[in-house]
Amino acid sequence: MTKTHSRQQHEVVAHYLRSSIRDGSFQPGDELPSEAELTRKFSSSRGPVRQAMSTLRAEGLISSGRGRRSVVLDNVPTQSFDDIISFSQWCHNADIVPGQRTQWVARQPAEKSLAASLEIPDGAPVVSIFRLRLMDDVPSMVERLNYPLEVGRHVLAFDPDSGSIYQELLDRGVDISRASRTIDAVAAEEEDAALLEVAVGTPLLRVRRRAFTSSGEPIESSDDRYLPWKASFTTNSTRDTPSSLSMISSGWPLP
Amino acid sequence: MTKTHSRQQHEVVAHYLRSSIRDGSFQPGDELPSEAELTRKFSSSRGPVRQAMSTLRAEGLISSGRGRRSVVLDNVPTQSFDDIISFSQWCHNADIVPGQRTQWVARQPAEKSLAASLEIPDGAPVVSIFRLRLMDDVPSMVERLNYPLEVGRHVLAFDPDSGSIYQELLDRGVDISRASRTIDAVAAEEEDAALLEVAVGTPLLRVRRRAFTSSGEPIESSDDRYLPWKASFTTNSTRDTPSSLSMISSGWPLP
Repeated sequence: MTKTHSRQQHEVVAHYLRSSIRDGSFQPGDELPSEAELTRKFSSSRGPVRQAMSTLRAEGLISSGRGRRSVVLDNVPTQSFDDIISFSQWCHNADIVPGQRTQWVARQPAEKSLAASLEIPDGAPVVSIFRLRLMDDVPSMVERLNYPLEVGRHVLAFDPDSGSIYQELLDRGVDISRASRTIDAVAAEEEDAALLEVAVGTPLLRVRRRAFTSSGEPIESSDDRYLPWKASFTTNSTRDTPSSLSMISSGWPLP
Repeated sequence: MTKTHSRQQHEVVAHYLRSSIRDGSFQPGDELPSEAELTRKFSSSRGPVRQAMSTLRAEGLISSGRGRRSVVLDNVPTQSFDDIISFSQWCHNADIVPGQRTQWVARQPAEKSLAASLEIPDGAPVVSIFRLRLMDDVPSMVERLNYPLEVGRHVLAFDPDSGSIYQELLDRGVDISRASRTIDAVAAEEEDAALLEVAVGTPLLRVRRRAFTSSGEPIESSDDRYLPWKASFTTNSTRDTPSSLSMISSGWPLP
């Protein structure tokens, strides 16, 4: 390589540190190599090394190290963007066989709240998919995916029992670059309870997700409801860095 | 100031950008100032500016900007460490009046799973507090806090109806520098349902937290259960940065 941009170099350093924490080469409590050692190892200036450390700190993986070496805090697994969007991908990485039983696929007019979530006019056409998802053949989650027609037409042409819709969208060149998620709890309603083989009212862990293109257009609005003994969320925070996971007071009406 | 360390300078730049996003000076979709503009504004070299951008990117607040200017992604509020640990603090920042009705405070031997969570021997003494928490005088959350005796003795000397235990611990010089949280859903059991004035079995959003000193010793193990129409969690992720919030397959036995 004749020229390395520092942007690339800080990513290389961050990737090295992250992988070393993930694979256990650096254990919780271990000191990281010093800045000087890392600059030597990567033939880098201090800027990219500091930038990489800054990123890992913001991810909750290492301590602030003010005046001391940074310490590995915890091997809480971070999660890739693919894992966040794709249940199939997440299962694969967790050594679980993902499955699905498609209940229906529909092209229909968007009701009000869905239209707002996708930032399209009320009644504009959307493609909606409702699937029961399985983990190792066990019913585990009910998934409702909604797409504006422009994206959804790829889904209409796809067999939703054949696997990952997300992968299909990526293969079709759809630009999915950001997602926001809201996590809460709801009681299982009749349809979901029957599919999940639990009593009506069973608590479910709900994950609502909106996905966006790089220019900020919403291209997916989804609602996943997990049996809570199948999945939970975990995160790690430090005093030095604001957490990107925020608890929000809902101000909802009573159910 | 005669000398500014770059460590401090990148924090100054990050704080400026974060505040500008939070107060709406930079709106979602807006381009951030260029690196050159920021280096001029802060009389800084490029290193600290890049480090600050890297931190905000990892926090999900700005886009990667490969070859273009970074764009503000969303004004998802980040959350400070105080907000994460302290319900009272979180309420204050959300313009909610926090309240509490202490059910009991006890010094007792740690049962097995609590001992494991606090990394102390089975049966070692712990201080446990059980409180109903109120938001604007409305029952909203049941809180179970547990401390090893060395930390808990401060709690025994404190009136838990007078407000924030976290603030009291900080005032006593207790070192609380990291926390891990696990989020899932559970059904309200009899005691909690009565306090929260809901039916047994109502879904609750559960947040289990462990807090640690800077050297990694656990000093708190807690279990908060929210009425899910009172609070939810929200987060923002980008393709370029692994998320520090991970979904974990529980592998729990059926309840």
